Amino acid sequence: MTKQWVVYLSGEIHSDWRERIQTGAQVADLNVEFVAPITDHAKSDDCGASILGAEDNSFWHDKKASGINAIRTRTAIERADIVVVRFGDQYRQWNAAFDAGYAVAKGKSIITLHEPELNHALKEIDGAANAACQTPEQVVAILGYVMGGG
Amino acid sequence: MTKQWVVYLSGEIHSDWRERIQTGAQVADLNVEFVAPITDHAKSDDCGASILGAEDNSFWHDKKASGINAIRTRTAIERADIVVVRFGDQYRQWNAAFDAGYAVAKGKSIITLHEPELNHALKEIDGAANAACQTPEQVVAILGYVMGGG
Amino acid sequence: MTKQWVVYLSGEIHSDWRERIQTGAQVADLNVEFVAPITDHAKSDDCGASILGAEDNSFWHDKKASGINAIRTRTAIERADIVVVRFGDQYRQWNAAFDAGYAVAKGKSIITLHEPELNHALKEIDGAANAACQTPEQVVAILGYVMGGG
Amino acid sequence: MTKQWVVYLSGEIHSDWRERIQTGAQVADLNVEFVAPITDHAKSDDCGASILGAEDNSFWHDKKASGINAIRTRTAIERADIVVVRFGDQYRQWNAAFDAGYAVAKGKSIITLHEPELNHALKEIDGAANAACQTPEQVVAILGYVMGGG
Amino acid sequence: MTKQWVVYLSGEIHSDWRERIQTGAQVADLNVEFVAPITDHAKSDDCGASILGAEDNSFWHDKKASGINAIRTRTAIERADIVVVRFGDQYRQWNAAFDAGYAVAKGKSIITLHEPELNHALKEIDGAANAACQTPEQVVAILGYVMGGG
Amino acid sequence: MTKQWVVYLSGEIHSDWRERIQTGAQVADLNVEFVAPITDHAKSDDCGASILGAEDNSFWHDKKASGINAIRTRTAIERADIVVVRFGDQYRQWNAAFDAGYAVAKGKSIITLHEPELNHALKEIDGAANAACQTPEQVVAILGYVMGGG
Amino acid sequence: MTKQWVVYLSGEIHSDWRERIQTGAQVADLNVEFVAPITDHAKSDDCGASILGAEDNSFWHDKKASGINAIRTRTAIERADIVVVRFGDQYRQWNAAFDAGYAVAKGKSIITLHEPELNHALKEIDGAANAACQTPEQVVAILGYVMGGG
Amino acid sequence: MTKQWVVYLSGEIHSDWRERIQTGAQVADLNVEFVAPITDHAKSDDCGASILGAEDNSFWHDKKASGINAIRTRTAIERADIVVVRFGDQYRQWNAAFDAGYAVAKGKSIITLHEPELNHALKEIDGAANAACQTPEQVVAILGYVMGGG
Repeated sequence: MTKQWVVYLSGEIHSDWRERIQTGAQVADLNVEFVAPITDHAKSDDCGASILGAEDNSFWHDKKASGINAIRTRTAIERADIVVVRFGDQYRQWNAAFDAGYAVAKGKSIITLHEPELNHALKEIDGAANAACQTPEQVVAILGYVMGGG
Repeated sequence: MTKQWVVYLSGEIHSDWRERIQTGAQVADLNVEFVAPITDHAKSDDCGASILGAEDNSFWHDKKASGINAIRTRTAIERADIVVVRFGDQYRQWNAAFDAGYAVAKGKSIITLHEPELNHALKEIDGAANAACQTPEQVVAILGYVMGGG
Repeated sequence: MTKQWVVYLSGEIHSDWRERIQTGAQVADLNVEFVAPITDHAKSDDCGASILGAEDNSFWHDKKASGINAIRTRTAIERADIVVVRFGDQYRQWNAAFDAGYAVAKGKSIITLHEPELNHALKEIDGAANAACQTPEQVVAILGYVMGGG
Repeated sequence: MTKQWVVYLSGEIHSDWRERIQTGAQVADLNVEFVAPITDHAKSDDCGASILGAEDNSFWHDKKASGINAIRTRTAIERADIVVVRFGDQYRQWNAAFDAGYAVAKGKSIITLHEPELNHALKEIDGAANAACQTPEQVVAILGYVMGGG
Repeated sequence: MTKQWVVYLSGEIHSDWRERIQTGAQVADLNVEFVAPITDHAKSDDCGASILGAEDNSFWHDKKASGINAIRTRTAIERADIVVVRFGDQYRQWNAAFDAGYAVAKGKSIITLHEPELNHALKEIDGAANAACQTPEQVVAILGYVMGGG
Repeated sequence: MTKQWVVYLSGEIHSDWRERIQTGAQVADLNVEFVAPITDHAKSDDCGASILGAEDNSFWHDKKASGINAIRTRTAIERADIVVVRFGDQYRQWNAAFDAGYAVAKGKSIITLHEPELNHALKEIDGAANAACQTPEQVVAILGYVMGGG
Repeated sequence: MTKQWVVYLSGEIHSDWRERIQTGAQVADLNVEFVAPITDHAKSDDCGASILGAEDNSFWHDKKASGINAIRTRTAIERADIVVVRFGDQYRQWNAAFDAGYAVAKGKSIITLHEPELNHALKEIDGAANAACQTPEQVVAILGYVMGGG
Repeated sequence: MTKQWVVYLSGEIHSDWRERIQTGAQVADLNVEFVAPITDHAKSDDCGASILGAEDNSFWHDKKASGINAIRTRTAIERADIVVVRFGDQYRQWNAAFDAGYAVAKGKSIITLHEPELNHALKEIDGAANAACQTPEQVVAILGYVMGGG
């Protein structure tokens, strides 16, 4: 399976897990295109207001942003073979769980990435996933295995 | 639109929001079948182990339960015209966010129900929803409106 | 084909075309459930604000309403075998054209209903329709024909 | 997300909005393939008659044209990641609204482009859109944001 | 499988094959709803002109009729569990072959019904069918078997 | 979830597992319609030849039968909410594994039923299943749980 | 729309219509990949027997061939943007009508190609087509128009 | 049809059938990308444990592996035009039968490959296949025929 795979990296934006996966895949010489949401927190929150005009009400400020971010997210999931969903311990990351549900309904393969402390809270999503990882390196190992020759 | 509608009530299981919606719909004489996950917390957590046998490892204990609960959840979403997703303030309810993503991908209408304090954290899910409510009575009012004559 | 058909009546809300179709179908003893958007103009425009709270900005006033009305519209189209799309001469009725496009993509049969003066402006929608009618009575005649024995 | 995106530009053909978007995307060095309907008004209206033979009846003249134009439109929407729908103030552009409905049902992201005067008349389509723009430059900014790194 | 099955009887309208199947199913007490196109040849040909107005050009006369007949045909195939496609020896019945292709793409089960003389000409359609019958009684026997207990 | 569920019982036909599940569901007063393939082995093998005529070549004898049996199987899976797949120890039951793959691709919930000795050989199918049972009584318990209140 | 289009040429194999379309497209410098069934009549009829072994019974001889030919046909339709369906006057070409029905159900654009003498017999297929042509040159003109700039 | 075809080779991993097909296709200069599951038996069985950690219970050892292997399998089937399913005489290969069912439901073309001794046991899968082969060389011949010019 030498053709390029597309892997969408959904979820937490405050740690270096994406870089560790991307670096690991590069070291392992895997033919992957990684896609991701916009990970600049401020830009992601304010994209609607900065492009389409400011809103007094924070609900509509957020609505404008979420509509635009969804263009990127949905397109990325549609293109992806695999969706990796990362849950950190600081934020609720409901959007990552939403992405996971959306991706499962679209028939995509799912890999979760989180600490074992979150196992119980994430049991439905782990239950729908192909694999539940604790480290980015495990994700890279899975990519290497499924894309490679063994 | 006099035929019965099916409404799936996803999310928080520790408050009386489902009862308030169901009572309100009954008072308003709406022709709705409400469906829901198993809301007995202990039974929901232990259904796998109690039916299929105990597990030492809590991860597999949860896996057995989530597989069985998914039978009910997926069937309910498949049958539903509308999915109401409730987020409380105490738990992360990633499964509710997962249900929302799954339901959106299946083309279902979504209504969220949560306190305004959660607006920012839930902006992607509210962004994909048809309506964001703060009280069960608002949900009932929407059901009455869309099913009725006004 | 004695089972009930579902027919969605989309579009203009300021004339009696729906009543004429429904009365005609009743006279012809056709087994049809007719579904429709909320046709009370004020209620349809204000449903969002009246249920979920007022908005200063008319754009968000409309956004709240359109989200709720879409619950009814999408559910109705999903259930329908046939979508009748009515264009009057006074309003632009872009929502009727939107419904027509949505319904065609979902594989529904389409019947348009409009004056011949609109033929050229509606050529793409007539082109995608199974039949282009000028009177409600023609719509009834088509329903009688396709549901009946001739 | 370095791969090429496909953006379909639907609607008004009597102003330079397409050129402004395309020029803006070029200046911003975005990797987009823009697709569009045939925008030569006369050719678009007469393609059926000129290729397949003239018709006395203008309804059939239009039918022949709309069938052929639909080949291009449907193929373009099918290929598109994003559909931009432009409404001007002079024509009814029901075909643009039809395209929008069709694209939403196919799961495409939608961006509308129109003057605020049309907000109320377009509320259902804006309600289904990811973003509602007033200038072509805003569309370009959204493309730059969702395709880029921020 | 005691619930009602829906069987669409497509094709030839100049022999009594539909009656023989329906009578046979009644004798065998099978719980089937049979659906069919309009089998009154003149009405089927002229439904467009008689409802929507006459056409000088026979091509458009036919176009009006085929659009209306397709409402019935597509709805019937959509509802059907099984599509029986009958080919007689006198006419080309391209519409029956079209129905068969449409039904296969929609995942319906197909039973063909024709004389062995047509085997070679119909090899692609027989190849896509679940069973190729020569008599209406064989069709009834298959219905009795698949619906019953043996 | 008081509406009837449909459960398809696929696989082994030489033991009483179907009866045990059906009796158990009746005792538990579950609102289920059970559907199944024709379980009379001889009739199932010979249905093609007996209805459509004998074949010298056993491959075509089987082909005629499998086409007819597939009408029942596909219709049953299409209607089912849950597919229970039973593997016994005597036969290979590739058709049951085929049904499982077909049902998973159609988004159905899967329950497997087999002895633990077969765990390793069935690991891919168990991996795609919501639950892996060893006794019919466990299947009944799962049905009671997912359909009921706990 | 500068990317390559895929056009499937279905139907009659005893005249030079494919060559005329392909030559015309080449002259017009259109970026099309044309796909087609195997048009060597004897090879197409005998491919099953020659690869998989001879059959005494012509029905099974044909069955073997139609299964193999369907691999090519279905793959080609799946890839195609447009399906051109040619009906000649000598054969019944039910397979072309079957392809047309299959392609319509898959959402492909359809162009028919036949003499006006066949108009009435082909009215259902013409009714589902985007354009009905009488000459290969008209097909080329349509391709040039929908792919080009006008 | 000069573009590359994708062929997934599912099933038996203890004989050289894949090599024979691949070599044959190379000799015939066919433009095919062959994809396959991981065929190193030990690695395939242990991939879950070796990447994600050991399990005492062999059921969960297998569960971890099957989830990861399914990422590769599902992606491969999704990409494939044709799925070749090989059944040997030593193992039950239920996963191959599962792949076949999954692929048929996804609309893929199927070619089976097995000894005639297995004909009766595999009759449902052969019944759903486009061709049933006994040698890898027959598979190559079919690929050459459907991809080539005859």
